[in-house]
Amino acid sequence: MFLTKKLWMFFVPVSLLLTAGCAADREERCHDKVTQVATIDSLLAGVYDGSMSLGELKKHGNFGIGTFDRLDGELLLTDGVVYQIRADGKVYLPADSTTTPFSSVCFFQAERREIVQKPLGFQELFSLIDRMAPNRNLFAAIRIRGDFSAVKTRSVPAQNKPYRPLSEVTKSQPEFELGTVSGTVVGYRLPQYVKGVNVPGYHLHFLSADGRRGGHILNLRLEKGVIEVDELDRFYMILPKQSEDFGKADLGRDRSKELKQVEGSVSR
Amino acid sequence: MFLTKKLWMFFVPVSLLLTAGCAADREERCHDKVTQVATIDSLLAGVYDGSMSLGELKKHGNFGIGTFDRLDGELLLTDGVVYQIRADGKVYLPADSTTTPFSSVCFFQAERREIVQKPLGFQELFSLIDRMAPNRNLFAAIRIRGDFSAVKTRSVPAQNKPYRPLSEVTKSQPEFELGTVSGTVVGYRLPQYVKGVNVPGYHLHFLSADGRRGGHILNLRLEKGVIEVDELDRFYMILPKQSEDFGKADLGRDRSKELKQVEGSVSR
Repeated sequence: MFLTKKLWMFFVPVSLLLTAGCAADREERCHDKVTQVATIDSLLAGVYDGSMSLGELKKHGNFGIGTFDRLDGELLLTDGVVYQIRADGKVYLPADSTTTPFSSVCFFQAERREIVQKPLGFQELFSLIDRMAPNRNLFAAIRIRGDFSAVKTRSVPAQNKPYRPLSEVTKSQPEFELGTVSGTVVGYRLPQYVKGVNVPGYHLHFLSADGRRGGHILNLRLEKGVIEVDELDRFYMILPKQSEDFGKADLGRDRSKELKQVEGSVSR
Repeated sequence: MFLTKKLWMFFVPVSLLLTAGCAADREERCHDKVTQVATIDSLLAGVYDGSMSLGELKKHGNFGIGTFDRLDGELLLTDGVVYQIRADGKVYLPADSTTTPFSSVCFFQAERREIVQKPLGFQELFSLIDRMAPNRNLFAAIRIRGDFSAVKTRSVPAQNKPYRPLSEVTKSQPEFELGTVSGTVVGYRLPQYVKGVNVPGYHLHFLSADGRRGGHILNLRLEKGVIEVDELDRFYMILPKQSEDFGKADLGRDRSKELKQVEGSVSR
């Protein structure tokens, strides 16, 4: 080994200097930015083939929601772990090589926090978050950890080609009444102007504290817990350039009605 | 100096290894990505205060279009230089500290190139570019360098508070018939689903080869030249988090008609 003390004295600071550029890039890349794979309208149009691996997705965030290749369940990413809530209502840990056709992720940093000690219905919860993050023209990531007296979720079964539109698939979606349950809500409130690109308003997924149940939230009642909000002012969208289905999809028409049907009537 | 030959043998490869991460990040950051400041609907709503300096904007691209603080003219960025075509029809070189309320920039890399040797009207030009870049669900940056037998442009005068909506301002916009002119067209063709966020379809600005005339293109006729297209599959939007006007703007309603009026009837 030829590394002398003198050499280290030179090498270590220079290395730190060299890596500082990377760190700054990463900071810039991560902070207050939501990264999205494809568009909600491409999903509505039936572009279900995954275009990004979960391994790649996690480079863009440690927190978020989405779905899987072939629409195989609801995706929830929290603390860097991807959970797959499939149509059987059970939770799986997918491999990093699994792909996603639509997801929205960020590096969550709570900027505002509210402790809730009295029960809140879905709409009351939305009103509270709207007060916590009054600028509706920015993006907001939302995390709620607490005890719930009711959580109603749904998932979707894996599809086979030729793919049916999402509004057809969700007509026969399995729904789950989770009853009294502790767990985490993960999701976003997005501005109205993302229509066509993502889901305007609230879009939330759930994972129980025991890691065994969850899904796309249709309704809930929070008994007590902590609501955290991270306001995001940067939006990064990565389109599936290689996907023939994406290239051919009719993304010009207004799919608001389909979206409302798919997301459940509670979103606003 | 204590750097021996042995030391360099160690230090140089390790440094390359360390900087490789940065380089990859920068490459990832630049390639095939359009970066946008604010939204077209915030501009339509009269949010004209600049939110990003041109110095900062140029970190996100060397090519693009936009406007200036207080709507003070049309912005054209090419080869890393920002040109300001003001309401007097003249071209200025603004300082890096000048700000923009709305711009779309990228690092242009021509992926497809067509040499044109017979005259093309505006719609024929669009048809040709649509054949060059058939995937209408991706973003496309467009550069045309050539000789034109006609170019009609407009610019907009700087506004004072309280700002009027853009559709009001453009009602009395100065328009310019540039006649026979050599120059560069810079702009984008964007997918329909960006409605509310940016301009769906074609949005092009012009700068004459002598650097003295230009503006937002309302019509043109290309005699001969080179059309270059760069397909972009990544979209990055940076919102003006600090702007009270942006936070208050009504970005929920459909402003398509206003946009059509503002952009000119030739866009499609």
